[in-house]
This record gives sequence, C-alpha cells and structure tokens, in this order.
Amino acid sequence: MKVIADLCVVPLGIGVSVSREIAACERILTEAGLKTRLHAYGTNIEGEWDDVFAAIKRCHEAVHAMGVPRISTNIRVGTRTDREQTMDDKVRSVEEKLKQ
Amino acid sequence: MKVIADLCVVPLGIGVSVSREIAACERILTEAGLKTRLHAYGTNIEGEWDDVFAAIKRCHEAVHAMGVPRISTNIRVGTRTDREQTMDDKVRSVEEKLKQ
Amino acid sequence: MKVIADLCVVPLGIGVSVSREIAACERILTEAGLKTRLHAYGTNIEGEWDDVFAAIKRCHEAVHAMGVPRISTNIRVGTRTDREQTMDDKVRSVEEKLKQ
Amino acid sequence: MKVIADLCVVPLGIGVSVSREIAACERILTEAGLKTRLHAYGTNIEGEWDDVFAAIKRCHEAVHAMGVPRISTNIRVGTRTDREQTMDDKVRSVEEKLKQ
Repeated sequence: MKVIADLCVVPLGIGVSVSREIAACERILTEAGLKTRLHAYGTNIEGEWDDVFAAIKRCHEAVHAMGVPRISTNIRVGTRTDREQTMDDKVRSVEEKLKQ
Repeated sequence: MKVIADLCVVPLGIGVSVSREIAACERILTEAGLKTRLHAYGTNIEGEWDDVFAAIKRCHEAVHAMGVPRISTNIRVGTRTDREQTMDDKVRSVEEKLKQ
Repeated sequence: MKVIADLCVVPLGIGVSVSREIAACERILTEAGLKTRLHAYGTNIEGEWDDVFAAIKRCHEAVHAMGVPRISTNIRVGTRTDREQTMDDKVRSVEEKLKQ
Repeated sequence: MKVIADLCVVPLGIGVSVSREIAACERILTEAGLKTRLHAYGTNIEGEWDDVFAAIKRCHEAVHAMGVPRISTNIRVGTRTDREQTMDDKVRSVEEKLKQ
C-alpha cells in the first residue's frame, strides 16, 4: 500500500528552536530511501506504508535520543486504490486547474 | 515506546456519511487490544507504537476493502521519556488545573 | 456557518508540562459560550465559525501572555451543508453502527 | 499576531478528485494577499492571524458553493513572540543544519 504522507514533528521541553531535531528527522527519512520534500510546516513523504511508518518511528527514537523528553507529532496520510498518484502528480493537478 | 495517539480517518469518494467506516475502524482498534476512546472528531488510542500503527494500517486496508477508493487520515501521536502517562492522566491533569 | 472543530494547542519552550496552558484554553472556550468536550489529545468544540475561531485566537494570545514564546496548534474543522449535526450526533452515529 | 499556517482542505461527498476545489482555495488565499506555497499535502500560508483565518473561512464558503456538501479541514498554525520568522526562514534553518 503506497502512501503520500506529511510529517510534522514538534519537540517539547527543549526551548523554542527545533531545527536541529527536524534536520535529524530529514536525514532519517532520506536514509530510509523515501522521497521527501521539506516545507515550512512539515515534510511530504512518499513511499510504502511500512517504510514510511518505520522511518517515522525512528524519527521519534532519534529525537528522544538527542535529549528531547516529549514529542507531539502530526501526521497526514493518504492512500487510494483507484489509481497511483505521486506527490508531484498532486501538485501538478492543482496547478493545472489554476491555469484554466 | 508507548504512545498516546489520536486518529481521524476521512473516507473520500463515497458520499457524506462515513460512520459505517469509522465504526469498522473502532472494531479494529478494539480487537487489537488497544485502549481507545471515541470522540466527536477522532479516537484517542493508547498502546505500544508498533501495535497502534499496525492497527491504523489495518483500518486503511479495511476501509478500502469496504469500497472506499481514497482515504485521508490525520494522526496526532505523542511520546515521552520523562515519565509514563495514560490518556486518563492527561485529562485529569487539565481538569485539576481547572478546579484551582 | 456552524462548525465542529477539534483543537490541540502545543506550547513550546516551557518544559514538558503543558496542562496549565491547556486549562487556560479550556476556560476561554467555555467563557466564549462554546460547547466543548476535553479529551486526551485535544478538545472538541461546537459553535459558529466566527465564535470558534475568535476563541482559538484568544487561546493563543492568553498562552503567550502566560510566558510561552512559541505555540504550534493543530485544528480539525468540519462544516456541512446537507444537514445540521452536533458533536453528540457524530458520536452516536458511530456507536449505533457498532451495535449492529 | 503573525502566523505561519498550513491548510489541508478535504472535500467529502463529491468523488475522489478534489483538485478543482483545492485550486479554488489557492485563488482565495492569493487574492487575500497572503504569501502561500502549495505542497503535496496542503498549503503553507504566512500572514496576520485575522487575514489568514478570514481567508480559510472563505475557502469553506467557496467550496460549499461549488456543491460540496461536507468539508473536513486540517490546519496547523504556529505563532511565536520571541522573534519574527518567515516560511523561508523555517525551511532555511533546517537546511543549514542539514549541511553541517
């Protein structure tokens, strides 16, 4: 089952700056061979369900290992059976409608 | 790694009523032995990371098997290493502050 | 336009315990005359669009005024034009399917 | 109060394709003078609280006016009082950590 997901990891109890932890998650997702795209409020991820969620679990483990005592994460995850669709397809589909 | 999660499964392409699909997910979570609490915009879930996410995957598979072509799910998931905390603890902690 | 929403306010930069800030938000929602129900990963809210979002804005203002430098909030919000539906209706609708 | 938000509007009851409705929301956000960036699971938005949420309300109104009977939206919204931060700042901050 292929998924397009969006991951927003929020580390608590370490101060206001969280970019070091987000960067650690980016590395984990990339090393997992997942297609990703960082944006200003999360990261788009494309891959197989098990691969995506195994990587998200490793993000939590890694961020805790960096000394973060609490994490609150928001995940959007979409699956569909009618057809294959990539992250680029989704963006292109909206952009084409915007040109009309 | 214990988690407290909140699951909101949104089936697309089947009409406005989605309670049949949500009920199917509730059954899956309960059969997985997870502690859950249904509310008006999702379901609280308490359990081990792997058990919780295996059950969420089964929800997607089951809802697709019911004929739903597309699903967009929102998951909140919290982990902490400083102490154990249950769903009831979280609610009680806020309610105690409200009494002060 | 009536909405059923779910609010999850996450204060950053103040330590791991956030129940004092969540309780402050609960008071604001209640004082706004909104129907609410606290759960383990947020708060269900029922009301008119403008009232709900004005109260959510006051939550951010109040939590910052308590000394919290950064807030990351997740909001689910549902609207429908086919029929009126309350928070209780949504839960009951799923529970009825569970009995069948 | 400046916000960086992320908006994910999910139209229900109209079939699996929702790009026409998402494009309508993009136009509304742009016409509101907000800085936006479309991605594969939502749209980043930067602006004043009132402007951002007024535009999100218009998105719901417009999508219902297109014939969509039900909408379930997920919004992430961040505010901070310690310093000003743009969407570009947030992405750059993570990318710099990735180079180290």
